[in-house]
Amino acid sequence: MAKFLFSNVIGAFVFDEKHRIIDEVLFNNIEQYSNKGVHEEKLKEKHKDAISPDEESLHHILLAFKDKKYFSDFSARNIKLTKLSLKESVKKDLLIMQAISAIGDIDKAVNLLVKRLREWYSCYNPEASYAFEGHEKFVNLITKKTKSQLLKELNVDETEAIGADMAEKDVSPIMLLASQLNNFYKLRKHYEDYLKELEKEACPNFMEVAGVTIAAKLIAHAGSMERLIKMPASTIQILGAEKALFRHMRNKQRNLPPKYGLIHEHQLIQKSEKGMQAKAARALADKLSIAIKIDYFKGKFIGDKLKKGLEAKFKISYGE
Amino acid sequence: MAKFLFSNVIGAFVFDEKHRIIDEVLFNNIEQYSNKGVHEEKLKEKHKDAISPDEESLHHILLAFKDKKYFSDFSARNIKLTKLSLKESVKKDLLIMQAISAIGDIDKAVNLLVKRLREWYSCYNPEASYAFEGHEKFVNLITKKTKSQLLKELNVDETEAIGADMAEKDVSPIMLLASQLNNFYKLRKHYEDYLKELEKEACPNFMEVAGVTIAAKLIAHAGSMERLIKMPASTIQILGAEKALFRHMRNKQRNLPPKYGLIHEHQLIQKSEKGMQAKAARALADKLSIAIKIDYFKGKFIGDKLKKGLEAKFKISYGE
Repeated sequence: MAKFLFSNVIGAFVFDEKHRIIDEVLFNNIEQYSNKGVHEEKLKEKHKDAISPDEESLHHILLAFKDKKYFSDFSARNIKLTKLSLKESVKKDLLIMQAISAIGDIDKAVNLLVKRLREWYSCYNPEASYAFEGHEKFVNLITKKTKSQLLKELNVDETEAIGADMAEKDVSPIMLLASQLNNFYKLRKHYEDYLKELEKEACPNFMEVAGVTIAAKLIAHAGSMERLIKMPASTIQILGAEKALFRHMRNKQRNLPPKYGLIHEHQLIQKSEKGMQAKAARALADKLSIAIKIDYFKGKFIGDKLKKGLEAKFKISYGE
Repeated sequence: MAKFLFSNVIGAFVFDEKHRIIDEVLFNNIEQYSNKGVHEEKLKEKHKDAISPDEESLHHILLAFKDKKYFSDFSARNIKLTKLSLKESVKKDLLIMQAISAIGDIDKAVNLLVKRLREWYSCYNPEASYAFEGHEKFVNLITKKTKSQLLKELNVDETEAIGADMAEKDVSPIMLLASQLNNFYKLRKHYEDYLKELEKEACPNFMEVAGVTIAAKLIAHAGSMERLIKMPASTIQILGAEKALFRHMRNKQRNLPPKYGLIHEHQLIQKSEKGMQAKAARALADKLSIAIKIDYFKGKFIGDKLKKGLEAKFKISYGE
């Protein structure tokens, strides 16, 4: 006579061959459910011949839980369990992805607004608007220095300057935009530091080899650290170059496969000679693949060794 | 014997038929140049037969100013004159265009960042992230109230909430983005007020009839108030609908001409019944065309009358 052992969120049960419950251990809470192995063992000792149900039996067994006696508990506990796993799903790598995306969005917004600021400010002080190429430096300067100060620095005679003499009430809206942009630059730096902190905890090896930004971009592109560890090194190598890859797959004669994706920005590849870049990308992706696995399974820190190995192999030293 | 009267930035001159200077009044500064009419009159009294040079004589006359005696003055004054006119070119309508463009850019930036904020915040407190639809209200609420307060307001039991329990150091970056966005909303409102002030000075009639935002958009689209006054009412009517207009011009059978462009957003058209919208657009554009001309030539304020006329005709009252 077959007996079936089956457990779910409300308890561990033994069914007879007619799928009636003949023994049970009810769980009082979700913690007991997480230790269900212990309770199953105890039942197994009493019912040595109990086996896991086959597909057909499982169907009948599951119907048993539609019984009023179990159903409300069964449903409530399952919902609670789902909520719990949702809570736990906010892991460091999710925060890394949010932070790097926020940095990307800030860059887009800043780019848009700084162009507006330059155009607007150039009505007032065109000489200075065109003199400072770097956006951040420009924004910083015009919030700190007056038009006269800037013109003096640029050796422009104030009476010769072609900017309009604008009233204070027309200059102040420009300055408000500039100081808003300044805040954005500060926020961006703050997020960079935060990202570094997150990665130090979640993926120190990966961060050491890839650098803070590229590490975050790779995780964000893969979708999670878990997905990243399942990828072969060759996939990590071309992550972010999907378009080029598919172009290659459609027409192999005309389009070479991509040599690198997101890791293209990496110093090891940037500083390599043209002929060596593909080789460097391959080596880098190998080490990245090792590093992320160590991080995911909470292994030791060997990021510095991996990095030194790469640097020695290609005779290139790279910073962050 | 022909005599020629010719004046430029350095003076007024009388040339003989061989294009030699026989009389001159040199200007000491640019102000005298702006009153050149007076000086020309004086010379004309002395040389009653002097005429404006024809094309061939003009060619010879202009060569005379390549002479060392005049050239450095001539060049310096011209540059000064150009700079002066550049200075003056920053007029109210230019500031109106900058302000409305800044508002548009802020909208784009805010839209981008508020989506990021919602996604990020929903890791922490998803119930609240989805409960408040309006972006501005959402940003405002989460900066002012804690997670517990918001959950209580939404009647969600805190132990049942599915958001993650995040450490303070992971929540603070989210809040920084939110307060940055709050600043943007404030800045936008500030610019709206500023725009209104500018329009009150530059185009009170036009603003009264069009409303602050549409007035600014029309000026920005035309490029200046000067260009706008040169447009027929029918062009103002479809300003901003160029794509639809050209589609119509390419294929008249299939594509009807556009009925309205930027003014489509106007309450007079929004509140009109479907069949009356084109008629309302035509009447509105007529009044706009009148209003902008009055404003440009500094006429009296009749914006309220124009507006009332429209409201009476279509039995619709519109606010701002």
